[in-house]
Amino acid sequence: MNAHTPLCPLFHRAVELVGRRWTGAIIFVLLRGRTRFAGLRAAIPEITDRMLSERLRELEQEGVVERCVVPETPVRVEYVLTEKGRALATAIDALGAWAHEWLDHPREAAG
Amino acid sequence: MNAHTPLCPLFHRAVELVGRRWTGAIIFVLLRGRTRFAGLRAAIPEITDRMLSERLRELEQEGVVERCVVPETPVRVEYVLTEKGRALATAIDALGAWAHEWLDHPREAAG
Repeated sequence: MNAHTPLCPLFHRAVELVGRRWTGAIIFVLLRGRTRFAGLRAAIPEITDRMLSERLRELEQEGVVERCVVPETPVRVEYVLTEKGRALATAIDALGAWAHEWLDHPREAAG
Repeated sequence: MNAHTPLCPLFHRAVELVGRRWTGAIIFVLLRGRTRFAGLRAAIPEITDRMLSERLRELEQEGVVERCVVPETPVRVEYVLTEKGRALATAIDALGAWAHEWLDHPREAAG
């Protein structure tokens, strides 16, 4: 197969979305359950508050994450995946499985 | 589930690798078959020669892509996924399926 297979533009948008720095990490954590801002920050080493806010805002705009305000005193805010976000589980899990199979043992990869 | 699920460091490395700008696109195209440099450039709109070279070099260093020199006159160079690279098919295909299901129709996503 030597003809050029053009890149699928929808796939490209998806990989640019999920691949944005920290975004995959945020989705990974939220797939395990709804989480507060501080919980996300604690789960993701090195992320800053500013970065986390920005990424969550982007994911809300994309319809991947919802911000739920739980009416307690004081009010509790939790981040939850939407149906669109939960549908990423297959891809995220497959990438996780690949990572465990191939990144754990340095470089036995060839042909 | 409100405890913090820590981010899996292997998953994080994988998403940072595949999510790097253009890397997912390159793997997507190479999953369809071995391709020359010019073929990759043609398949991926907007990528520059410099970016493509850099990404291919990174993927070679990671053991995901191999550079095959076909002994013809003039010599032909093709890029091919290694076994480690081909093992990404499940994750890449799942992300493609998600993109077709969820990015094609703007914003019916909720809860």
